[in-house]
Amino acid sequence: MPPEAALPHADKLAHVTTATLTALLSKRGIRNSFMTGIAPLDSTVKIVGLARTLRFLPARGPVVSQPGGGEGNPQRLVIESIRPGDVLVIDAGGDVAAGGLVGDILSARIKYLGGVGLIADGAVRDTAQISDVGLPVWVRGVHGDGYPRGLYPADHDQPVRCGGVTVIPGDYIVADADGAVAIPPEHVAEVAAEGFGTERKEAFIRQKISVDGYPSTTAYPPNEDILREYEEYKREQGW
Amino acid sequence: MPPEAALPHADKLAHVTTATLTALLSKRGIRNSFMTGIAPLDSTVKIVGLARTLRFLPARGPVVSQPGGGEGNPQRLVIESIRPGDVLVIDAGGDVAAGGLVGDILSARIKYLGGVGLIADGAVRDTAQISDVGLPVWVRGVHGDGYPRGLYPADHDQPVRCGGVTVIPGDYIVADADGAVAIPPEHVAEVAAEGFGTERKEAFIRQKISVDGYPSTTAYPPNEDILREYEEYKREQGW
Amino acid sequence: MPPEAALPHADKLAHVTTATLTALLSKRGIRNSFMTGIAPLDSTVKIVGLARTLRFLPARGPVVSQPGGGEGNPQRLVIESIRPGDVLVIDAGGDVAAGGLVGDILSARIKYLGGVGLIADGAVRDTAQISDVGLPVWVRGVHGDGYPRGLYPADHDQPVRCGGVTVIPGDYIVADADGAVAIPPEHVAEVAAEGFGTERKEAFIRQKISVDGYPSTTAYPPNEDILREYEEYKREQGW
Amino acid sequence: MPPEAALPHADKLAHVTTATLTALLSKRGIRNSFMTGIAPLDSTVKIVGLARTLRFLPARGPVVSQPGGGEGNPQRLVIESIRPGDVLVIDAGGDVAAGGLVGDILSARIKYLGGVGLIADGAVRDTAQISDVGLPVWVRGVHGDGYPRGLYPADHDQPVRCGGVTVIPGDYIVADADGAVAIPPEHVAEVAAEGFGTERKEAFIRQKISVDGYPSTTAYPPNEDILREYEEYKREQGW
Amino acid sequence: MPPEAALPHADKLAHVTTATLTALLSKRGIRNSFMTGIAPLDSTVKIVGLARTLRFLPARGPVVSQPGGGEGNPQRLVIESIRPGDVLVIDAGGDVAAGGLVGDILSARIKYLGGVGLIADGAVRDTAQISDVGLPVWVRGVHGDGYPRGLYPADHDQPVRCGGVTVIPGDYIVADADGAVAIPPEHVAEVAAEGFGTERKEAFIRQKISVDGYPSTTAYPPNEDILREYEEYKREQGW
Amino acid sequence: MPPEAALPHADKLAHVTTATLTALLSKRGIRNSFMTGIAPLDSTVKIVGLARTLRFLPARGPVVSQPGGGEGNPQRLVIESIRPGDVLVIDAGGDVAAGGLVGDILSARIKYLGGVGLIADGAVRDTAQISDVGLPVWVRGVHGDGYPRGLYPADHDQPVRCGGVTVIPGDYIVADADGAVAIPPEHVAEVAAEGFGTERKEAFIRQKISVDGYPSTTAYPPNEDILREYEEYKREQGW
Repeated sequence: MPPEAALPHADKLAHVTTATLTALLSKRGIRNSFMTGIAPLDSTVKIVGLARTLRFLPARGPVVSQPGGGEGNPQRLVIESIRPGDVLVIDAGGDVAAGGLVGDILSARIKYLGGVGLIADGAVRDTAQISDVGLPVWVRGVHGDGYPRGLYPADHDQPVRCGGVTVIPGDYIVADADGAVAIPPEHVAEVAAEGFGTERKEAFIRQKISVDGYPSTTAYPPNEDILREYEEYKREQGW
Repeated sequence: MPPEAALPHADKLAHVTTATLTALLSKRGIRNSFMTGIAPLDSTVKIVGLARTLRFLPARGPVVSQPGGGEGNPQRLVIESIRPGDVLVIDAGGDVAAGGLVGDILSARIKYLGGVGLIADGAVRDTAQISDVGLPVWVRGVHGDGYPRGLYPADHDQPVRCGGVTVIPGDYIVADADGAVAIPPEHVAEVAAEGFGTERKEAFIRQKISVDGYPSTTAYPPNEDILREYEEYKREQGW
Repeated sequence: MPPEAALPHADKLAHVTTATLTALLSKRGIRNSFMTGIAPLDSTVKIVGLARTLRFLPARGPVVSQPGGGEGNPQRLVIESIRPGDVLVIDAGGDVAAGGLVGDILSARIKYLGGVGLIADGAVRDTAQISDVGLPVWVRGVHGDGYPRGLYPADHDQPVRCGGVTVIPGDYIVADADGAVAIPPEHVAEVAAEGFGTERKEAFIRQKISVDGYPSTTAYPPNEDILREYEEYKREQGW
Repeated sequence: MPPEAALPHADKLAHVTTATLTALLSKRGIRNSFMTGIAPLDSTVKIVGLARTLRFLPARGPVVSQPGGGEGNPQRLVIESIRPGDVLVIDAGGDVAAGGLVGDILSARIKYLGGVGLIADGAVRDTAQISDVGLPVWVRGVHGDGYPRGLYPADHDQPVRCGGVTVIPGDYIVADADGAVAIPPEHVAEVAAEGFGTERKEAFIRQKISVDGYPSTTAYPPNEDILREYEEYKREQGW
Repeated sequence: MPPEAALPHADKLAHVTTATLTALLSKRGIRNSFMTGIAPLDSTVKIVGLARTLRFLPARGPVVSQPGGGEGNPQRLVIESIRPGDVLVIDAGGDVAAGGLVGDILSARIKYLGGVGLIADGAVRDTAQISDVGLPVWVRGVHGDGYPRGLYPADHDQPVRCGGVTVIPGDYIVADADGAVAIPPEHVAEVAAEGFGTERKEAFIRQKISVDGYPSTTAYPPNEDILREYEEYKREQGW
Repeated sequence: MPPEAALPHADKLAHVTTATLTALLSKRGIRNSFMTGIAPLDSTVKIVGLARTLRFLPARGPVVSQPGGGEGNPQRLVIESIRPGDVLVIDAGGDVAAGGLVGDILSARIKYLGGVGLIADGAVRDTAQISDVGLPVWVRGVHGDGYPRGLYPADHDQPVRCGGVTVIPGDYIVADADGAVAIPPEHVAEVAAEGFGTERKEAFIRQKISVDGYPSTTAYPPNEDILREYEEYKREQGW
């Protein structure tokens, strides 16, 4: 059973772009939902999931040995508690020179537990191996060293900053070729439903423009004639 | 009929790299023609066209509804007046966090009207869908939100700044895997002709180096012997 | 004969990632070996070689004609003295707007002489043509103009700064999809040997996690049971 | 006659901080009026004036001789047409390395004509001499070279971008130790009147806090008791 | 009673520079204690205090009215609970364009309660009025708008990032003309005592260099002769 | 004997601003002489001297103890060999987070030996104490930690990059409130002589503008009438 199936609204969200979602949130007063500067390693994938968060802070001194699997390590606590459909969102203050926050082995663990993606305002390492593992990743950069070079995991499942956006645990995360968007859960039913419709309508408009040669001033936003045509088209499609 | 065919010199320019054009302009005193930091979404395409320009400025306040197809909107005015062979060059002050300046629907309109590309010192949205539309794009970044997040279209077909370069409407624009260059029209005949020859000569030199093992000190720039050989080679080719 | 075969430890290093090498160097007190912000043009290649260095400084005034193949030009001196297995590492102060440091023709010469790669804290030009030439390149950016736009070659085979890391001629350079790392030669035997083992062990751990579902807290770093299993596995493999 | 006296609302605006004005504009939907990163050369001065604008663009090639006092030069056109109470606002794309846009001599001319200040998203030169001249200046940086190093004056008295804010000719400009704010003229009467009152009220509140020890939760914003006290205080002052 | 007097070690720390403290912490493995890019508004003051922390995150949408003195506002909670000797350290993600985090009125409240300073990785507003209030401030920038422009107060008295350094509530904060340093409390007794001695010794060394003309190779660090002289000097001073 | 007296042309250069010198160098093809982003700690001082250079590179690992006064340390070698009239110019790659390159004690040594200033593309520490020592300093930033935090001194008296400008040992350095300029020695006699005259002429022009109200189009550059007046004025002054 794919995790998207289990997550309410995920079936619809899977067909809505981050651009459309951002615009719909903006209309509802959520004007800051798209993460700036956080790019996919693989621009062909799309994910829908629920945010889990992890925050790194600057290490006071160099951490000599990798902090291992101890109980107190927030990085391990959040990763080991990943549930199917979760997306791990990491705040590393945008510091891409401080080392990679996650590599292939922890990516494999996230993937195994059903995690659907990783989003980091910082760097990852082992990008080729993460690609083999198959965990979709959106990041600000890449760095070969491990995070103990400059950071330590400070806490998890608290609100964080990522790409200039606040992400709160439980937010819906949708990410695609453009990047990643955080959707407050109280808005998700509405934007999923409206977004699904928006995509269908925009595909119709694009055809009007690309095939029928309508000017944008008539078709985008659509005037009444085109809206009427679209209503008819929807009836034909049984939507 | 491909727009390049109609544009004088475009047949030659299609075989000249932006790197060669930049170097030839530099020799003529145009030392600032290559746009820094403006990268292709698809590095396999190349375009040649004429610059149309659009300038965005910071919005004074949040624009609640998308400004639509009204008469006064410079974005719509310039897009609806795109002619075959035009390239739309957008100055958004380099701000990639202020929202996407153009998405797939307006890209489809530019494409339909014969526009050959879009170059923006700012962000676009719907990158996957723009790729479907088939409009070649060079940008500084990607952002899912629409431009009303932080910008408004201020004027069009005026000189603009893009990638640290001034672009004046009517400039030739050539863009490829390296990026984009603006060519003042008074120089285009010369650099197209010379560039076409330069590419042939550099291919000859590269063969001398890659196959025959000539040192760069002899072959680049070519000494008299190699130049003589090249003259002979040109005669053989009937150039 | 591939150059890697000739270079001691290169056969092992070819199987070790830059992430693993960086971590192993870090354990030995070399905490600053991975170059930040220097990305591959082609993320599918990997190289191992010895550093040769070149430093560019800001040109005092515009250099009108390309400085040619003269004796005194450090760029040409270092390129013409490239030996099989060398990697050219260029320090241009991180300035990606000052022009491309190397294009396709000089890349062809480096390739012909057996050079295995080019790494630059600055820009290259002719990226499509460099790809044809087949020289692997890691850079901070791309710029169409030539370096005389803003730089001149100041010296070669001196210590340089690249991606926030010091590179000393004779350092081992390994570069892959994540980026590039400089290995002081006195550490190379150790990290090559240990790294080769680390990669095998991490592949084993990844299988434990991806296939057998072990938690990261048990498997990474591995506890005694898993270590014992791995020892047995190594015996089976005849390692 | 001081220019401020002649400009409507200037007498009130002279007593209102840029911070208060920004907040009042924000309440009216003008959420983007304060210029980020544009700092005073002298933090003890304050100005009120009307915006005149000038836009620089990147020079295509180096301009060998200073363009002089020719008719076509937008820099000279705008400076020679400065009226008492004008503030010259310059958009140089934030480029502080391209040379100083104005030096002491043109500053002296602006001052002589009654110009009350200069604000530039770029650099000035001759800062010590400008200080002697007595023209108040707010800038992003300082550069010793003249603008022909990298820029040319493209147009004047058009909308420009300065410190991330749009400035339209005729906007009111107020600048103080914090920086500079652009006020759309249709809002100026209201914010001047309200701001003048706000400053008096905030001085009253600050005294409640600093002298009487009121908690911020009671006094800022003031609760009904404090508001009543303030109304009485106003009556006593005859305001 | 000055707060410094009440705070253990504050009397000694008042005579130790941030540079000396940073160096002493570095020797103890705390290699990341000095906040980069956080400059004093007034470079003549010095403070010693205990860290209280406040973290701002990006606002999801524009906050129309200032959130007032409500119970849930972490900004007000931390300010109203300031104790004599506290320093408020604010993490705003380094965003200086998002608005001023604190102005003159809240500065007055901090000052009234005995707070000794404000340090912010972000901007403040009302700098001239804050100077009147007399609260020493170290910041990354200045912005006239209030924080609701782009931020909201997310939590307080949690570990934060400021100037690339982790600050934990209860850390000692020392700030002077160079900037600010966070001292983990377990190290404060030692570095205060050693730092006090270091400053005396360095004053002695500086005199040897400035007056007696000793070379740095002899005097810094001091050789045995100078150390012996210094021991004698200390005896003479009765230290 | 003041060092300036001894240095040829220093008496004239002391009366020429960096802005004028930069413009005069630019006219001679030296278009890149003013250091961008390198600001004075004290904007009231001016220096003239000869460049000595020092280059720092990233430390491979943390340097535990300060490298002391050993023979091989390029920082100490260059400081101990400072001669009257020298200016130490330090290239630290613009890294202001890597620690302070020089503090008060080494500044005192430079001052004692007759060094007239310090210019660094990086940070210094102990700024208040350096001010007591009296060594004029121009820098990109301030950092409390010592350089071993992230750098080591790599070589001295080689060409370096500082503020985007190449500085070669033996260059004349002039620095004032605007910043610092490097003058190739072969141009110094000319620009000193011409600059001295330029300053006198510009003072005359400024008076025409400030007192007599001449328009800039007539007076800057001066037309023939004003030039004739100036020639007469020079005769009167006995220049």
